[in-house]
Amino acid sequence: RRLVPLLDRVLVQRIEPPTKSIGGVLLPESTQSKLNEGVVISVGPGRRDKEGSLLPMGVKVDDKVMLPQYGGNEVTLGDEDYVLFRDEDILGVL
Amino acid sequence: RRLVPLLDRVLVQRIEPPTKSIGGVLLPESTQSKLNEGVVISVGPGRRDKEGSLLPMGVKVDDKVMLPQYGGNEVTLGDEDYVLFRDEDILGVL
Amino acid sequence: RRLVPLLDRVLVQRIEPPTKSIGGVLLPESTQSKLNEGVVISVGPGRRDKEGSLLPMGVKVDDKVMLPQYGGNEVTLGDEDYVLFRDEDILGVL
Amino acid sequence: RRLVPLLDRVLVQRIEPPTKSIGGVLLPESTQSKLNEGVVISVGPGRRDKEGSLLPMGVKVDDKVMLPQYGGNEVTLGDEDYVLFRDEDILGVL
Amino acid sequence: RRLVPLLDRVLVQRIEPPTKSIGGVLLPESTQSKLNEGVVISVGPGRRDKEGSLLPMGVKVDDKVMLPQYGGNEVTLGDEDYVLFRDEDILGVL
Amino acid sequence: RRLVPLLDRVLVQRIEPPTKSIGGVLLPESTQSKLNEGVVISVGPGRRDKEGSLLPMGVKVDDKVMLPQYGGNEVTLGDEDYVLFRDEDILGVL
Amino acid sequence: RRLVPLLDRVLVQRIEPPTKSIGGVLLPESTQSKLNEGVVISVGPGRRDKEGSLLPMGVKVDDKVMLPQYGGNEVTLGDEDYVLFRDEDILGVL
Repeated sequence: RRLVPLLDRVLVQRIEPPTKSIGGVLLPESTQSKLNEGVVISVGPGRRDKEGSLLPMGVKVDDKVMLPQYGGNEVTLGDEDYVLFRDEDILGVL
Repeated sequence: RRLVPLLDRVLVQRIEPPTKSIGGVLLPESTQSKLNEGVVISVGPGRRDKEGSLLPMGVKVDDKVMLPQYGGNEVTLGDEDYVLFRDEDILGVL
Repeated sequence: RRLVPLLDRVLVQRIEPPTKSIGGVLLPESTQSKLNEGVVISVGPGRRDKEGSLLPMGVKVDDKVMLPQYGGNEVTLGDEDYVLFRDEDILGVL
Repeated sequence: RRLVPLLDRVLVQRIEPPTKSIGGVLLPESTQSKLNEGVVISVGPGRRDKEGSLLPMGVKVDDKVMLPQYGGNEVTLGDEDYVLFRDEDILGVL
Repeated sequence: RRLVPLLDRVLVQRIEPPTKSIGGVLLPESTQSKLNEGVVISVGPGRRDKEGSLLPMGVKVDDKVMLPQYGGNEVTLGDEDYVLFRDEDILGVL
Repeated sequence: RRLVPLLDRVLVQRIEPPTKSIGGVLLPESTQSKLNEGVVISVGPGRRDKEGSLLPMGVKVDDKVMLPQYGGNEVTLGDEDYVLFRDEDILGVL
Repeated sequence: RRLVPLLDRVLVQRIEPPTKSIGGVLLPESTQSKLNEGVVISVGPGRRDKEGSLLPMGVKVDDKVMLPQYGGNEVTLGDEDYVLFRDEDILGVL
């Protein structure tokens, strides 16, 4: 099931923090800041400037991104949770 | 009974979540996020730029769209409930 | 008694919901959404753009319109109640 | 005693509702909406656009106007109370 | 002691209402609106437009002005109290 | 130790009110408004306009300035307290 | 592990105040204002103006900067805490 973002929106899936270490040891609960990372699933075409040209997007599909602690629109597609951010609200690329 | 949206407004009918499975089994109450999907019933002509040209709309009639959790104007036409959103507030097309 | 709206304002009279059916049966109290419909009584000349040209209005006298649930300026002229909206705040034409 | 409004301000004197009918019968207390009418006492020269030209005012001295329920600056000149509104905040001309 | 206002600021000294009549009789406490009048003590050079030209100020030294009920920056110079307003916030000239 | 302000920021040191008179007599506690004066310690280069030219600053080093009662960013450099204001928020030059 | 800031964002690591003097004596708890200094770890490419040209950034990697007391986005990379600010929100360079 697919969602095509409109304008300069970016569909992101948050990265769930690992609950076990590579060796299998149970890890302590992840800090909240860890949940602010995600993977770009799809991107909108971008906004248009006053002459009608598309403004380039700052991120692309599969980018691992750092998200702000607030904002965004939570959406559910099938059984998966995602979040939509405006391109300019994404903090950086990891 | 018809409503012609003005400017860049979009008339959307929310998709009611199914209450029974295809086999007839009663389904659990849908999560709230499911109600944020809708079908475009009619669209306004769009806003005009400073030169007076119509700016193209991002959605069209019959598009299945993802709506933001807040905002929009609820309206009733006949016995049916609808919601009007500005074109730029619609999150994406499903 | 007349009111000539200034700029892009629109004078609207809300449509009172019928209290009796055509056959004379008393109807239940109308839902609040029904009161958000009205008839355009008079319209202002419109706003001017930066060059001084009048921007066209979206509605005209006698249009039946859908109003937003909030906003507008309530006014009384003689014994009648009206509401003034900016042209761009009117949701659509019925 | 005179006040010359600056920019696009309009000095208005509210119309006090009559307390007796023409035949001399004491009238019930006027509704609040009645107090939203006034007479234009003086007008400022208007705002200037980016090129420095004065933008025309929408009302003139002696116009009977409909005022919004909120806003405006109350002023007292001699023993009289007035209210100053920006030209664009005046709802219409009666 | 002098204060030269920056940009489009205007230094105003509020007019204290008289506490005695001309004949020497003690007057009742002035109403608050009386304190909204003042005399212009000094004016800034004005704001600049996008081309760098100074925009003309609406008031000049010694003008008696009507002030809004809210806003402004209270300052003390020597033993005297003054208030600074932006030129466009001054309501009118008396 | 030095701080070079960015953009149109101005580093100001507030003038502490004297606690003794010239003759050595202890003075009463200064009023709060006295603390709104300061000396400019350093100034940023200014903002740039749309063509990239630096917009001139309104104050210069060693100017004695009047500060607004609110706003500004308090900073500590070594043992000294300072406050940073945007150039346009400084009220005037003393 | 790296974070490449988007647009005009600046990744800053706050300078932890020393807890011991050079001679080894335990220092009193640093004042809060001391924590408003940091070192620039990485900078975004900058915003673009209306013609699409990159606007120059005010700070560069390794700059020691003064931060505002509020705002910014806290992020964690590996075991280290950082904060992201817009270039124009950084107060000055130390």
